[in-house]
Amino acid sequence: MSQVIGIDLGGSKIALGLVDPRGEIRARRRIDTNSEAGSKAVVERIAAEVEVLKATLPPEEALAAVGVGAPGPVNHVSGDLLTLVNLPGISNSPFRRLLQERLSLPVALDHDAKAAALGEFHYGAGRDGDSMIYIVIGTGVGAAIIYQGKLIYGEGNSAGESGHMTVDPKGHPCHCGSRGCLETYTSGPALAKHYAAASGQTVTGAEVSARALAGDEVALEVLASAGRALGIAIASLAMTLNIERFVIGGSVALAGDLLLNAARESLTLYSFKTVSAKVNVRATSLGEDAPILGAAWLARQRACGPG
Amino acid sequence: MSQVIGIDLGGSKIALGLVDPRGEIRARRRIDTNSEAGSKAVVERIAAEVEVLKATLPPEEALAAVGVGAPGPVNHVSGDLLTLVNLPGISNSPFRRLLQERLSLPVALDHDAKAAALGEFHYGAGRDGDSMIYIVIGTGVGAAIIYQGKLIYGEGNSAGESGHMTVDPKGHPCHCGSRGCLETYTSGPALAKHYAAASGQTVTGAEVSARALAGDEVALEVLASAGRALGIAIASLAMTLNIERFVIGGSVALAGDLLLNAARESLTLYSFKTVSAKVNVRATSLGEDAPILGAAWLARQRACGPG
Repeated sequence: MSQVIGIDLGGSKIALGLVDPRGEIRARRRIDTNSEAGSKAVVERIAAEVEVLKATLPPEEALAAVGVGAPGPVNHVSGDLLTLVNLPGISNSPFRRLLQERLSLPVALDHDAKAAALGEFHYGAGRDGDSMIYIVIGTGVGAAIIYQGKLIYGEGNSAGESGHMTVDPKGHPCHCGSRGCLETYTSGPALAKHYAAASGQTVTGAEVSARALAGDEVALEVLASAGRALGIAIASLAMTLNIERFVIGGSVALAGDLLLNAARESLTLYSFKTVSAKVNVRATSLGEDAPILGAAWLARQRACGPG
Repeated sequence: MSQVIGIDLGGSKIALGLVDPRGEIRARRRIDTNSEAGSKAVVERIAAEVEVLKATLPPEEALAAVGVGAPGPVNHVSGDLLTLVNLPGISNSPFRRLLQERLSLPVALDHDAKAAALGEFHYGAGRDGDSMIYIVIGTGVGAAIIYQGKLIYGEGNSAGESGHMTVDPKGHPCHCGSRGCLETYTSGPALAKHYAAASGQTVTGAEVSARALAGDEVALEVLASAGRALGIAIASLAMTLNIERFVIGGSVALAGDLLLNAARESLTLYSFKTVSAKVNVRATSLGEDAPILGAAWLARQRACGPG
């Protein structure tokens, strides 16, 4: 039996998982990213962790491939990292080629939101259908669209910037220069900002969710408002694409139904009843493991499939 | 050389075109729809017009197939018409099978907006790329998305209801039960309604466009407002799908840049500069011939291809 390793390459941490063909993580490693020393140093340190995971395999099993989910933008065709705001040290490098040469194994690389979507689609909350939209809500908001089993990349490889769909053209200004973007209602920093405006207290987005779970009325309304904006965006996506499975991930999704019930209500208000009746809005079932499992799936495709 | 016939089956008229392999319409027919007598009667009358067109062919040419664009909803897989609000007489009938049996020729059938999109994509304003979004603005507003050469149908065959994307959650009520839908700003009836509200004069949507072209200030502002709403929807679609070609058809598109310049400006305001810089918003180049040519393309696929 062959195994693969899925890697979530993050701004501060790198999480690795040894993944079996059913999508079970059999062993894990986690190291600091420390990207300042450049791509080759990061590749060296990843290779050392790959060796550690490989050493856990019984003699009859082999490592077939490695997959990486990176905080975009990336070129998934060439495997290059482009300009990564949070990882300047490894930006603009042929990361997949470097890792592949170092490991002498097939390596796949894609955007982490797309990897997470593939994880949910093949092993998690989206595995009951052939199409799915994944929306990740954390510091920023992004999406990945899977239609008939395949990711939509777009003509310039930048599909999925649904965090900047306009929810209200007269809404809050967004750092992107527009206003009323979905992100201005739902991101972690947006939750913190709206909570501070209503309560005078400075807390993080995660703390807003924690307070809402504890019954704080202001926090509950901030999350409900975020959910209503999310529901409007989901409605427009569902009307346009007629995709019926929406999986919501990222740190803000930890608020669960405090966010998602408001989204479901506004989805019903802002779409045809025939459409909203079929749309299912779910929280991630894989959580932080989604990008690891999606990267593992990409690795397996690269080892076994045409990709 | 083989020829095909494309048919635009409309609420009041049926337009037929004999189309050569380069997408040139070599002969035309046009009859009233008169759907009251039912599907078989309409099929009989279409068959008579097909015979007339066939008779114009020189002896060395043959008719290979026929394609039909129908005002949805349709099931493009089975070729059935579903419940057509404007054509109750032929609703819920196996229209493709009936026409195919009558003609003894392969017949293709799809939604008219999708047919029109295929027409623009293969023979018109969208033929310079492999992806395109067609937005048709008439009595209603719909869309058809072509990604990497293929139409997106969605899981329940209802993709393209982008006329009901939310442009402003506190906007005008829409007949669909929601509010602030794109359609409430841009459809012909919406133009008429907003013009009447601002001027006190009752005119049709077409007359609003005509007055705007003649310099009427109120009409110009109604069209600009419609264009701004259209630009917001295009921005959200471009950010999500990263498709760079938008072709605008339907009767309201006859207003041309009076509508589209406002759309282009608001697209720039409501999307990343890197995205809007690449997006091209164009008017239809085929006009009323778009569904005929798209239906002809579908006919050729059905005769020659796997479809």
